[in-house]
Parts: sequence; C-alpha cells; structure tokens
Amino acid sequence: MQRLRIDYTLCMEEALGPTHGLSRYLVEALRLPLEAARTHLGEQRRAGGLQWMDLPRRDPADLLEFAAWSAGRFDDVVVLGIGGSALGTKALSNALLRPFHNLRSADERKGAPRLFVLDNVDPDEIVGLFSLLDLRRTLVNVISKSGTTAETMAAYLVARKLFIDVVGAAALPQHLVFTTDPLGGVLRKIGRQEGIPLFEIGSGVGGRFSVLSPVGLLPAALAGMDVPGLLAGAAEMDAWIGETDVISSPAFVFAALQFLHYTRNKRRSSVMMPYSHALVDVADWFRQLWAESLGKAVDRRGRTVNVGPTPIKAVGATDQHSQVQLYVEGPDDKVFTFLRVEQFDHTVIIPELHADEHAIAYLGGTSMAGLLNAEQEATAWALAQRGRPSLTITLPRVDAHSVGQLLYLLEFATAVSGELYDVNAFDQPGVELGKEATYGLMGRPGFEEIAERIRRGSGDEDNSRLYRLE
Amino acid sequence: MQRLRIDYTLCMEEALGPTHGLSRYLVEALRLPLEAARTHLGEQRRAGGLQWMDLPRRDPADLLEFAAWSAGRFDDVVVLGIGGSALGTKALSNALLRPFHNLRSADERKGAPRLFVLDNVDPDEIVGLFSLLDLRRTLVNVISKSGTTAETMAAYLVARKLFIDVVGAAALPQHLVFTTDPLGGVLRKIGRQEGIPLFEIGSGVGGRFSVLSPVGLLPAALAGMDVPGLLAGAAEMDAWIGETDVISSPAFVFAALQFLHYTRNKRRSSVMMPYSHALVDVADWFRQLWAESLGKAVDRRGRTVNVGPTPIKAVGATDQHSQVQLYVEGPDDKVFTFLRVEQFDHTVIIPELHADEHAIAYLGGTSMAGLLNAEQEATAWALAQRGRPSLTITLPRVDAHSVGQLLYLLEFATAVSGELYDVNAFDQPGVELGKEATYGLMGRPGFEEIAERIRRGSGDEDNSRLYRLE
Repeated sequence: MQRLRIDYTLCMEEALGPTHGLSRYLVEALRLPLEAARTHLGEQRRAGGLQWMDLPRRDPADLLEFAAWSAGRFDDVVVLGIGGSALGTKALSNALLRPFHNLRSADERKGAPRLFVLDNVDPDEIVGLFSLLDLRRTLVNVISKSGTTAETMAAYLVARKLFIDVVGAAALPQHLVFTTDPLGGVLRKIGRQEGIPLFEIGSGVGGRFSVLSPVGLLPAALAGMDVPGLLAGAAEMDAWIGETDVISSPAFVFAALQFLHYTRNKRRSSVMMPYSHALVDVADWFRQLWAESLGKAVDRRGRTVNVGPTPIKAVGATDQHSQVQLYVEGPDDKVFTFLRVEQFDHTVIIPELHADEHAIAYLGGTSMAGLLNAEQEATAWALAQRGRPSLTITLPRVDAHSVGQLLYLLEFATAVSGELYDVNAFDQPGVELGKEATYGLMGRPGFEEIAERIRRGSGDEDNSRLYRLE
Repeated sequence: MQRLRIDYTLCMEEALGPTHGLSRYLVEALRLPLEAARTHLGEQRRAGGLQWMDLPRRDPADLLEFAAWSAGRFDDVVVLGIGGSALGTKALSNALLRPFHNLRSADERKGAPRLFVLDNVDPDEIVGLFSLLDLRRTLVNVISKSGTTAETMAAYLVARKLFIDVVGAAALPQHLVFTTDPLGGVLRKIGRQEGIPLFEIGSGVGGRFSVLSPVGLLPAALAGMDVPGLLAGAAEMDAWIGETDVISSPAFVFAALQFLHYTRNKRRSSVMMPYSHALVDVADWFRQLWAESLGKAVDRRGRTVNVGPTPIKAVGATDQHSQVQLYVEGPDDKVFTFLRVEQFDHTVIIPELHADEHAIAYLGGTSMAGLLNAEQEATAWALAQRGRPSLTITLPRVDAHSVGQLLYLLEFATAVSGELYDVNAFDQPGVELGKEATYGLMGRPGFEEIAERIRRGSGDEDNSRLYRLE
C-alpha cells in the first residue's frame, strides 16, 4: 500500500525568505525537544497511559460481528454523540461512503443503512431527523464515556421514548447499542440492566483520540466501511512515525513546523484546507483535536500561559472565493495545511464546448481533478509569494488505508505538540465552568449557586441592560 | 413583525473589567468616525455606487414569475456557483427550508424541488451529484458575474454536455437559467444567443453582497421560500439602521465593537457561533463577507496595513465539545458573536425517564430549546468569567423576515467596518495572483509566463525537493 506524502518546502526560507520562512537549522534545533518528546511519549505508552496509540492493533472482530448481525435489519443508523463521539464518525463517513450516501436508494447503497450523526439539541433538527425514520428499522448508537453528557443524554431520552412508543420497551435491546466507559457510568449501568449491547471506549482513550476505537469504528462497520483497512493504515503510520529519526518522522515534523510558526512567527492560526470533498470533515475533526488538546491556560509546571493555536477549517477550492483574499493580504498570522488527493475515484473530462469563447475554452479537454489540484498548487504558490507558509499532505487516493494513516498521523502529531508546548494534551479543564453553568440554568440539583451567580449578572445589574439594541 | 435584538453587555467593562472590556466612553469616542462613515456611505449610495443597499426594495415579480413557470416542471434545482454565488443560497436554504429538505419525499416537500449547490470541482462529488438527478426533470442555475469563474464554468460545461446528451441541445433553454452581469460577460452572450433565461446581478452588487439579488433570491423562489418576507425584513433593518443615532444603530454598533476589540485588544479573530441548526450556514456566508471585505494589504491611502479580522464559524452547542476549551483558556484573541433563537418551530420536551439516575434525571421535563439556550447563556457567561467578550444577536424566530434582517445587518456592518479600517470593502485584489497561477497551470493562453515561474519553483530548485517526507 502507498503512503501519504508530506511536502513542507513552502514552510522554509528557501521558498519564503529568511523573515517569513523557517531555516533547516531552526528545525534541526528542535531535535533535542523532539527526541525528549519521543522518549516521554514512549514511556507513557509503555506504562499503559496512551491506549489510543494501541487502537490500530485492536482486533475489530467484535465490531464486525455486531455489524454482521445488524446487516439487513436496519434502514437507518443514528449516532447520538457530540464532540469526539461525533466528529470521527462524520470524518470517516464523509471520506469513505459514496458522496450523497444518504440520498441513495437501498439498492445503490448495497444494503448499507443510511447513517446520521445527531450532535446537537436543536429541537427543529431533532424533529426533522426523527420524522425521516421508520423506528422499527432504525438502530441508535448512543456514545458517551460518562453517560452524563447533557446533549447526548437528552437526545437519548427522546429516542428512548419514541422507541418505547413504537417498538415497545421489550424491544429496546434490538434498537439501541451503547458505546461507553468500560468500568462505570450511567450508560453502562443501564445497558447491563436492560441487556442493551455495550461497546467500550478504553480507559486511556480520550474522546478526541477515539476515532479508531468503537466510537468511530462501530458506526463505520455498521455502514460497511473497511474497518480493517483503516486500522492497517493507522498501524502503518504508527510504524513509520516510530521507525524514523525525529527530523524525518511525519508526526514530529508536522508538530515541529506548526510549533515554530506559532512561537517564532506568532502565527496563531492553523488553517487546514482539504482540496477534496471526501476530506472536508477531517478538518472539522482536526479542529477539536488541535484546539482542545493544545488550548490551555496553564502549562505542565502550573505557569499561566494561555497558549494554543486556533485551528480553522477551510475548503479548497471553494474558500478561494471566500477566505483567500484575507489569507493572502491580511495579517501574516496563519500557517496552512493543504490536503490533496492524487487519484480520485472518477475521472471527469471537461467537455470541449463554446470553443470560440477564449475565457472558458481553455478548460475543454482538461480534467476536473487536474483543475482542482492546479488550484491547490496555485493557491499555495500565491500564498508563498506573500511569505505565507504552507505544507501539503498528499493522499495517493481516499480510501480506508490512507484515511487511517492521516488520522493517526494527526493524533500523534497532537501528542508531540503537547510536549513542545509543555501542556497536558489530554485534559480539557476549561469546559467545566460552562457545563456547571448549564447544569445550574437547567435546575440540576447541586448547582443552584452558580445559577444564582449567572442570574445576578456579571456586572452592575442596572447598567447591564443598557447595552441592548432592540 | 418583531425585530431581532442585540445584547452587547458582555463586551463591556461592567461585565469584563477594564482590561478586557470596553468602556462606554470608548464606544462613544467612535461617534465621529461612525458619523463620517454614515455620511460617506450615504454619499456613495446616493451616487448609485452601493446598489446592494437598494436590493430590499427591488420588485421580485420577475423571480416569482419564473418560479411559477418552473413549478411542477422540476424535481431538482442545481445551483452552479462559488463564493458569493453559492454561500447566500446555502444560508437561505438551510435557514428557511425544512431540515433535511432534500431527504424528503415530493409530497412532504409540497412539490418544491430538491435544491443542491455545487460550489467545487471535485470530480467524485460532481459524479455523485449528477448520478442522483433525472436531467429531464432538472433545472440548473449557473451563477457567475463575469462568466469566466473557472470552477463554475467547468461545472457548467459538464452539465451542458449531459443535458445535450439527455434532453438535446434544443431543450437547453428549458433546463438552464443564467444569473450574470447586466452588461457583458460570456454567460450573458451565450444566454442571448441561445434564448436561455437571464437574470441580472446589478452592476454595483459585488458577489458577497448579492444574497438579496437574483443570485440568492432566484434559488430561494424556485424552492418556495418567502422572498417578499426576506426583502421586507431587510428593508426594515435598513430603516432601523438609517433612522437611529450611530451609537444605537445596530450595524454601526456591531462594526464599532468588532473594530475596538480588534484594534484596542488585538483580538484578531471573530467567531460567529449560531445556537440554531437553521442558522449554521449564515456563519459561513458571513465568513466570506467579513474576510474578503476587510482582509486587505493596503488601506485607501495606499499604505501597507495587512489588516483584517479572521472570521471563524463555530456551531453551538456542538463546538462546546470541540472549541470552547481553546476559547476559554487559550489566547484572548477572539471576539464572539452568538446567534440565538427565541422561538423554535417545534417544542420537544425531554421525557422523564431513568428518574433514579440523578446525573440525567434533571433533564426530564425540560425542553430541548431550553437546554440549547441555557448552553448559549452558560457559554457566554463562562467566557466572560475569563474576560472574553461576546455579543448575542437574538432572532425572535427563524423565518424569512428575521433572516432578511440579519443578513442585511451584517452586510451593512461590513460596509461600516470598511470605513473604520479605512479599506476598500468592495474589492478583492489578493485573489488575482492565485487565479492567474491556476490559468497558467491549466494552460490558458496568455498565462505561460506565470506557469513557468511556478514550475521553476520558488526557491533553490535542488533544495526544494528535500523538504519532503514519503
């Protein structure tokens, strides 16, 4: 199988000049920190602390067996999850299912169910989704490690009630499957009491590193994606990362380049711009991985740092007509990661029509893929002319193997980045306050005080209402 | 009809303290520049230069007539456009069509066609889309001001050839409709030669200000949206903006707050976070409006400024589980605009199940809308606790009237912002180089030299290939 490639020429001073570009000596100067990162991550891994690194070698037999049982039983699979319990499935399904999968007939889907991910609590969206489904032919996969995620559990309660009404409480174990903590939590308890099938998220597998656990792979198996191919690609990337000197190892180089642009050139934003419809949602998945792992108030020594690159999703070529004006002419505060595909599934040759109209005739006889990749190359080049750095990750084609490589590469690079920024890449303390505030506003017992604080308002109560236009 | 509301309490020092928040005196200090902006925009408008400001009062009879002709003839409408020719239609259809519109049966759609927007040149996406369509029952709306936009015209050539094969060249005028420049351009010429229906984008209406022109309103009319309601909402907003002192006028205040956070507090990113599935694509539309209008290398006096806020789309509550960790703890370099809906179309009460599980039982009996809006309030409050500013725009409900208000507000605020930043908000010179580079790589005559420059590479040719991992 072919590997993905990374070209970072347009990050470097040979392309951008010494002010805007990085020198090879600067990259080389990170050798010691990168080797320390490798050592530290290796120690944690051997101590059993980074179980997500071992997911590529987990046997998926249980997932495939469940998928085999489900085959033909369901027209629709609905994932209820949010954040790391949704973004991986979205990325996988957009990459590996045929475009517009859910709009195709059952025949065209070859019996695979439609796949929906509900990751919000908008009532109109929820009513809209459930009005599409025949619940007798629907499987709902509820995903929450703790079983207390408010959005997911609210949607679960709605779905559960609908199932009870339509198929009856006794049939719930045939329509629900839970993916949750292996040891505790509400979902595990309910599942065991009621005989609802359970899949486990490993203890050392945080939500945003869970795409290759049953969190991402159960929906993938249910929709007929190539789960062993995904795992094999990820395992191959793990081997490549591990075998190679840090200055040539893709995860270490990716992390180092991003870190240097952030710290040396104060490029605080990291734009991921896939030139592939299939890879668009990978950028959204990466947004969580990068933002939640690296956006931290304190470093590992407890010092206040308020650090973290802001990941931004852009879509090539589409956003050339939306964001590139800013990217080229605005502040030089971004580094760009292009995702590019060498071989698409289909070849579309642009027809030679309107041969007398020179402004469009040149397109005739060329291919759509050629146009898309020319646009990527042109955009990277135009950015470089203005001193704006980019690196390009090229997938030989979009298949389970290459997507497995890509996702694992980005996960590992995130762990390396945590070492470089010296932050804990695996916690998310900053979301607690908002969660508690929501609990308070929703009347959850034990959170009355925070509700009171919010209601009192944050400033002078009399003044606060003056800042309102209506 | 009810107006939308803007609450900017959490931008101000009463809520955030004097370091992080703005004082009312600082806002007041912008009075003169804001009044100058109003005067200058008014002069330009009276001189006929800002025709997009007059779109709310344009008679949509021609659009409605065409939509009436189309009714029942087509199962599918496909928009071929990119950037400003696509984003408005996406925002409108996501806001005003029923959720999952394209997945519904013709009966459920009450005869309205499915609506697709193709705004890229990915061959797999294009093949996927056209494989869904019965071309005998399909209308394609090609939108390009110049008629030379490479992506749009490539897709048009593909669609044209397919139509010729399926319905024959003579039937093209029954399946194509062009929205283009009123005076010149390739599409206009082809349309006139072949009798293809033409709609005009006004001369003073740039792509990103075109949502209320036939660019956005023809697809809206074809899909059965309330076009007069959209225009009425926009006209009401125009009146509100114009009638009110600048320090209470929504467009001026929105622009002023964003500008002050950018310049005084160096908050270079502007996050728009809708807590409404229907409004999610408004944030994408706003990304273009804000980035392309304000991201500029030189100001109006020709000085190099490399200025411009980076607009970021986030989705509430979803991105609380992806981005909020960074927003709360990372660099204090963002200002947040929440979009919030007071009254959803549907009420979903969360069922009271699992009453013995305290961690979820509190949700029972509350509403999904209540949960979603509590999450918005909690997130804004938690951000404010860390000194991060936000403003909240509340729509009484999502309908044509309020969406018209919102879009026009943001357009007008963009024009005001151009005045404050002292940049030309209506050009996009930075995209030319990339376009020319694409032409060169695609072999368009006249662009051989730039192709040669790209091929020679940007740095030392021998070195350049060393920065590659494979």
